[in-house]
Amino acid sequence: MLAQRIALLSGSGTAAAREAAKAAAAKGRRIIDLAAGEVITAPPVSVREGAITAINAGVNRYTESIGLPSLRKAVAKKLSTETGFAWDTDNIVITAGAKQGLLDATLALLNPGDEVIIVRPCWPTFPSQVLLAGAKPVFVDAKPPSYVPEVRGIRNAVTPKTTTIIINSPNNPTGAVYDRTTLQAIGDLAINYDLWILSDECYSGFVFNGDRHHSIIVAHPGIRSRTILVNAFSKELAITGWRLGYFAAPPEIVAAAKKLHSITTSNANVIAQHAILHHLEVGDGSYEREMHQRLAAARKAGLKILSKLEDVAPPRAEGSFFFYLDLTPLFAGLPRTSSTRTVDDVARILLEEAGVASVAGTTFGDETGLRLSFGAPPEELEPALEKVVATLNGLKSR
Amino acid sequence: MLAQRIALLSGSGTAAAREAAKAAAAKGRRIIDLAAGEVITAPPVSVREGAITAINAGVNRYTESIGLPSLRKAVAKKLSTETGFAWDTDNIVITAGAKQGLLDATLALLNPGDEVIIVRPCWPTFPSQVLLAGAKPVFVDAKPPSYVPEVRGIRNAVTPKTTTIIINSPNNPTGAVYDRTTLQAIGDLAINYDLWILSDECYSGFVFNGDRHHSIIVAHPGIRSRTILVNAFSKELAITGWRLGYFAAPPEIVAAAKKLHSITTSNANVIAQHAILHHLEVGDGSYEREMHQRLAAARKAGLKILSKLEDVAPPRAEGSFFFYLDLTPLFAGLPRTSSTRTVDDVARILLEEAGVASVAGTTFGDETGLRLSFGAPPEELEPALEKVVATLNGLKSR
Repeated sequence: MLAQRIALLSGSGTAAAREAAKAAAAKGRRIIDLAAGEVITAPPVSVREGAITAINAGVNRYTESIGLPSLRKAVAKKLSTETGFAWDTDNIVITAGAKQGLLDATLALLNPGDEVIIVRPCWPTFPSQVLLAGAKPVFVDAKPPSYVPEVRGIRNAVTPKTTTIIINSPNNPTGAVYDRTTLQAIGDLAINYDLWILSDECYSGFVFNGDRHHSIIVAHPGIRSRTILVNAFSKELAITGWRLGYFAAPPEIVAAAKKLHSITTSNANVIAQHAILHHLEVGDGSYEREMHQRLAAARKAGLKILSKLEDVAPPRAEGSFFFYLDLTPLFAGLPRTSSTRTVDDVARILLEEAGVASVAGTTFGDETGLRLSFGAPPEELEPALEKVVATLNGLKSR
Repeated sequence: MLAQRIALLSGSGTAAAREAAKAAAAKGRRIIDLAAGEVITAPPVSVREGAITAINAGVNRYTESIGLPSLRKAVAKKLSTETGFAWDTDNIVITAGAKQGLLDATLALLNPGDEVIIVRPCWPTFPSQVLLAGAKPVFVDAKPPSYVPEVRGIRNAVTPKTTTIIINSPNNPTGAVYDRTTLQAIGDLAINYDLWILSDECYSGFVFNGDRHHSIIVAHPGIRSRTILVNAFSKELAITGWRLGYFAAPPEIVAAAKKLHSITTSNANVIAQHAILHHLEVGDGSYEREMHQRLAAARKAGLKILSKLEDVAPPRAEGSFFFYLDLTPLFAGLPRTSSTRTVDDVARILLEEAGVASVAGTTFGDETGLRLSFGAPPEELEPALEKVVATLNGLKSR
């Protein structure tokens, strides 16, 4: 008999989508993967050099459980530059990806019975981590086409048991970038109701609305003492599998993470730590700029193709690297006899008939959305999206 | 306000010992570190080559959350050779060190209120993980000089709430290697009372009693369906900071770990996975043999020095790489006016006066033990132990 908590956890929907794609590919089908949450490209030379130098130097021992002091200091410096506030080494924890930072925060903040507000559609890790901590996810739906939540909806969801709001802007899966007014209002709400804010900003390098990323802490500096800002190097430096992230938080959360890491995983991989330290020391920002340019071009080309969808509006895709389609009008236009009833049906049809792996919105708690990554290689992205358009446009005539 | 679970967790005592040593070193003192739980040497060339090849190939993407299928298969093969039973890829989970494997098992098995039997002195991660899962550690004391627990003591600790026994042979901190009869009796007990066995075997490469490591599964094959065998490459390949371990278990535990990894950390660092895969493919065992020879020589030289202790028996040190001294007779022989009252006092005196970092038994739930690592470099180990002997022998005359 397994512990009851295991039954509470759903498997990873995005991993399941990738596995379905692999299974189809194993049957000899050519599958283009628009399901992955990563940009398919090589990591920066500086990261690879930093890693190889460390390996050649024989680096192998434990670091402090919350990371090398030199790396924590370098991250504090980076964050000070980005936010305009001073951050100290004591505010920083190095994690095995953003996921571990979110887990640290969840375990450090939540008691059983606590309620946590999560904006939906959402990355499924958020509610699963809340459940793992014995707390209760309370969902607030963000609506298309903006997928930016109404603050009134968040306020209405607050109860005496609410302790935390999780936000994620730029958003996975919807691509929403929350405007400053919304971020400020969420900050006010946190102060008025004495709540923590857990802000997952791991797509901060991917904003395409003409502006650049603004952390909620920058939008509302008054919430800094009640905010945990989680980020990672995974997406922007194309090292998802290396597992290196960080969070910035008040020192009491850092102290809790130090205890937690010492009994969960110890330090993040020491070679990855040295690799990122080297990148932060010698990187001139050119890799990140080229990454942004590549994604901006992919987004533009993709949106042009998606504009040919007949019943579905092209997505706004202001941030992250996902096109998130609202298929509501498509379902409304299908004949009552259609066997295509759900977004899971659509994802299956795209995989089987168009050879394109996508992620159904149900993975994110949404019955009508479909996520397509534009982090795929450019030469694969455009033909894949053409097939998606042709398939979706053809659904009503079958 | 932090979650209540954080207050349940003690900080890492071994990390605290290392930090005290670093603080003393920062004051200009020359400190020899016998506190670390790692062998101070370079990792195998095959591991480093495997890592560099992967980095140069641009390896960077997520793997399955429980590890590369090729690595899981290679570990299954290794374990099949070592245990004489067939293990399948479906039995294996790749983890960020043994610690994460133990955490997976703890979270997968334990409900709040469950009782878990832990043999003390013990690695403090065991009870902390049990507490994190909301369960209750129940300690059974293993006595010097063997520090092998009496099975009767374990049986007496079983209650209707007991679900799991955690064992760790070769043992950290005591160096005990459980004999086959004890392992078989613990296995019988698990069957009779329908318990899980969580077996931490991460010091399996370090047995010095003339025999080689026997897993409890080998001693008692009947318990295989109720056992989680946790191990790591950290100690034997000197890559503690790289964080790579594994566990072998029935498929339902593997499935639970897959869910857990997908919401806690995702995969272990992908470069470390490729590095170990390469080592398992090309390694000829010579690194492991040399590691064993070095430690056997260090143990022999160390025991010779420790035989000069006047009031303290030399440790048996049959396994792991720790000398664990029982200071009971030393305290008994001190004048009533002595300011040296506890093993923490002794560890502090050793640090401040002998310049040797050790770990007091209190870290392991034991008021009378002292742990000294013989994984330190040989040229440091012997002078450090000479100082330890001189200091301990001098305690009664001050």
